[in-house]
Amino acid sequence: MGPETYRETQAFLKNCWYVAAWDYELAGGKLLARTILEQPLVIYKGDSGRPVALDNRCAHRGAKLSNGRREGDCVRCMYHGLKFDASGKCVQIPGQDNIPPKLGVKSYPVVERDHLVWIWPGDPALADPAKILDFPYLRDPSWRGKPDYMHYDANYLLIVDNLSDFSHLAFVHTKTLGGSEEYAYKSKPTAIERLDDGFRVERWHMDAEAPPFHKKVVKEKNRVDRRNIARMYVPGIFFMETLFSPAGTGAKEGNLKGAKQYRNCQFFTPETARSTHFFWDYLHDYDLDNPAIASSLNVSMIEGFNEDKFIIEGQQQVLDADPDFKMNGIVADAPLAHFRRVLAKRIEAERQSLRSVAA
Amino acid sequence: MGPETYRETQAFLKNCWYVAAWDYELAGGKLLARTILEQPLVIYKGDSGRPVALDNRCAHRGAKLSNGRREGDCVRCMYHGLKFDASGKCVQIPGQDNIPPKLGVKSYPVVERDHLVWIWPGDPALADPAKILDFPYLRDPSWRGKPDYMHYDANYLLIVDNLSDFSHLAFVHTKTLGGSEEYAYKSKPTAIERLDDGFRVERWHMDAEAPPFHKKVVKEKNRVDRRNIARMYVPGIFFMETLFSPAGTGAKEGNLKGAKQYRNCQFFTPETARSTHFFWDYLHDYDLDNPAIASSLNVSMIEGFNEDKFIIEGQQQVLDADPDFKMNGIVADAPLAHFRRVLAKRIEAERQSLRSVAA
Amino acid sequence: MGPETYRETQAFLKNCWYVAAWDYELAGGKLLARTILEQPLVIYKGDSGRPVALDNRCAHRGAKLSNGRREGDCVRCMYHGLKFDASGKCVQIPGQDNIPPKLGVKSYPVVERDHLVWIWPGDPALADPAKILDFPYLRDPSWRGKPDYMHYDANYLLIVDNLSDFSHLAFVHTKTLGGSEEYAYKSKPTAIERLDDGFRVERWHMDAEAPPFHKKVVKEKNRVDRRNIARMYVPGIFFMETLFSPAGTGAKEGNLKGAKQYRNCQFFTPETARSTHFFWDYLHDYDLDNPAIASSLNVSMIEGFNEDKFIIEGQQQVLDADPDFKMNGIVADAPLAHFRRVLAKRIEAERQSLRSVAA
Repeated sequence: MGPETYRETQAFLKNCWYVAAWDYELAGGKLLARTILEQPLVIYKGDSGRPVALDNRCAHRGAKLSNGRREGDCVRCMYHGLKFDASGKCVQIPGQDNIPPKLGVKSYPVVERDHLVWIWPGDPALADPAKILDFPYLRDPSWRGKPDYMHYDANYLLIVDNLSDFSHLAFVHTKTLGGSEEYAYKSKPTAIERLDDGFRVERWHMDAEAPPFHKKVVKEKNRVDRRNIARMYVPGIFFMETLFSPAGTGAKEGNLKGAKQYRNCQFFTPETARSTHFFWDYLHDYDLDNPAIASSLNVSMIEGFNEDKFIIEGQQQVLDADPDFKMNGIVADAPLAHFRRVLAKRIEAERQSLRSVAA
Repeated sequence: MGPETYRETQAFLKNCWYVAAWDYELAGGKLLARTILEQPLVIYKGDSGRPVALDNRCAHRGAKLSNGRREGDCVRCMYHGLKFDASGKCVQIPGQDNIPPKLGVKSYPVVERDHLVWIWPGDPALADPAKILDFPYLRDPSWRGKPDYMHYDANYLLIVDNLSDFSHLAFVHTKTLGGSEEYAYKSKPTAIERLDDGFRVERWHMDAEAPPFHKKVVKEKNRVDRRNIARMYVPGIFFMETLFSPAGTGAKEGNLKGAKQYRNCQFFTPETARSTHFFWDYLHDYDLDNPAIASSLNVSMIEGFNEDKFIIEGQQQVLDADPDFKMNGIVADAPLAHFRRVLAKRIEAERQSLRSVAA
Repeated sequence: MGPETYRETQAFLKNCWYVAAWDYELAGGKLLARTILEQPLVIYKGDSGRPVALDNRCAHRGAKLSNGRREGDCVRCMYHGLKFDASGKCVQIPGQDNIPPKLGVKSYPVVERDHLVWIWPGDPALADPAKILDFPYLRDPSWRGKPDYMHYDANYLLIVDNLSDFSHLAFVHTKTLGGSEEYAYKSKPTAIERLDDGFRVERWHMDAEAPPFHKKVVKEKNRVDRRNIARMYVPGIFFMETLFSPAGTGAKEGNLKGAKQYRNCQFFTPETARSTHFFWDYLHDYDLDNPAIASSLNVSMIEGFNEDKFIIEGQQQVLDADPDFKMNGIVADAPLAHFRRVLAKRIEAERQSLRSVAA
């Protein structure tokens, strides 16, 4: 675990899929203005159902296309009326018969899958939809959740860091997601798997009080055996499987009778080097007919995420004030340190390949 | 029409007259703090009626003179009481008998004419009031209007561009100033005169529905023959003559019976490279006894200008995000491209002459 | 008095005591986030009563310690639970047994004295509490005041300047602290003592109307002989003794019968190069049982200080707009010019000593 500096957080991996939006954000054919990796985009779903992402500026005079009008799968700039199709090609200039064949705006590969709209900011030739991470619970009817969005005034890696060390549950989320400070002192990661696309951490906490967000929905006060399996993927995607089993009934040995489970997906997409789009859903596998459960979990998560946001946006302010501040590693940083190494390696590889293309 | 970049909009022509204020903004001897071409000024009218413009900082410790007190044609800094006359010379230092003869603040040539206060930011020796553009309708009792001011968070040339291509009426102002999108497809400029101080565009639109702002005041639904003669002058002054004549009565051939006319003056003065003072008046030549007409036209124009402002301030944000964005010309850009060439030539000539003076 | 530029105000003297807070700001063990000389700090008083100042960022991941929790004389970061003692040393890492001996945050010498909390931003080895300026009236029961705080969006030296020339009373504070413009024309400093830690100015104004703030509390309209003895100390500490004596009763010759006196302390601590913490108290020596007097004086001072703030923050904006603006000296600038010379000399000496240590 070497020291890390703020400057490392300034580079982005470009040849990979990022979540750009939840499908509900594009409902009704809305032209969504959204900046991804410092690039202002207009994102929308055409009449054909096809999702489209274009640079959010008309090729003519730079007016925002998001201030324009969607027409079918096209968008018309409402300044002088130029019309662009889903590939970004200009297909009409009012009052002018000839359209320069190269006139257009940059388009980006976009894929909608399981309610998520994914974008590929890098080389379009490399954009393989098969590389999109699968989180099957979003389409599986035996799970129920409530997708949501939050904006952070902080670099996305500070949020990845946050999720890489669950000891923060004890201090940041004592009364919400965590439950007690003892969690930090008693529980230790039982397995950290360093993977070449991120890491996996499994953590058991036996015979513990259930955390407030869980007690609020199950209305039981019994102690639980709690297991979290967290999986973090490059560039900033987090999946977690959570299990609460009645304490001492042998969950560790495979008896899941009476267990209640959660599946948590979180997607961090850089807006800029200092701000992040955060898409998430927290799904449960019980009492699926009761909509109050997903609502309660959603509210609990927002409460908890706001606790994180307060701390993390404070970190960003500290780093802004002194970009040369050197962080100091502790043992619990192993996952995040590994993640940053893996990410840095990928970014470096991407740079090398760009250089060799140019040479 | 070559491509243009944002950087071109950063240089200002200095040896020319800009509108600094409407006379009503200086009523009651007010000390107006206004930045012109990046220079913070205090502007006021002295007891003698003379308009004055000085750098808005006391020569002593830099306190704002606009926070001071006007005394006759002078202004007193209300920090330590130094007093400056209309030429900027310090004429009193309380508690000190000798005044350094060179102590003073920079003053600027200012002329008040037809309710407009003009300023010359460049070399005072070249400031010839005869070069001030004449817009006689502001003093002609057969025309009535309502002078007004608007602030733009955008470079002034983006507003000049806007007025250089009236096809935008169809898309930006469909329901206000324009009237219908067909205007963009059917009408073409019938004459573009490239002039060495700007351009002139004349545009007829025969047998058309009258635009909403006109219908609102004349309360007729008859179709009209519509003519606009637009004249744009360096550095950013726009005059327009507008004619609505009953459709098919031969207005093009000179029969103006039943015609209603407008005269429109718009003055764009850079506040900074990214913001603009916009002074305007929209005058009519009929029913002069009815003040509701000028009021209605004023409200309609504000509605329309806010539509422009929304688009244009969006453009500025796009250019701020990527100053290297290259615009792409279309046929309708001929007037604006000519205007930028003429302006660039003038700015370059001004630079050359400064260089030769220095050499 | 040479010209001065804005750039001179950017350097700070570091080896000296600055006021960081009033004691009441730390009441209840509060973790106060405060930036001093561009450095974000957390300041608090431990259970032992000891005042503590630490860099406001956890050594681990930079979370703000002011978002943490005070425990005794220690502070715990509420991100991952690291705990730091009053010296900044890390004393606990939850879930980790070994603490790297060098892990910690920077601490600063702090001293609480007479309700003021002083900090030494420079070399701790040189921090001698004996160098703290004594203002005995804060602990003397024969004086009563009301300590207060104000924030300025301006460099602290612009406020020092303000207090270095009392002719501003006449113009800025005509109706509040000053009383009349004649003060500027009639009164002259009778003695300016140039000292190597600042200056001393004594000013008499005989047979004058009492200023509004004084009339408001004493409810008399009699004319007064007024004396101000102002003392300004490096880096930005101002003490003033004010005397109002019935006019013509020989105050200058030592007869203080019927005199009412004030003691004024003002401490200017740079927050950044462009903003200042201003701590002050204005104490009186009569009618000590009447709390309304201190309240009225406090309100009057705030009114007056807001007049200064308006002018001075305007100055800062002027300097921000043109950092190369050169101020011009007048005779009344002698004290401030001397003060800046003394301060510049100290700052330069501090740099030289740092360089010789490094060599």
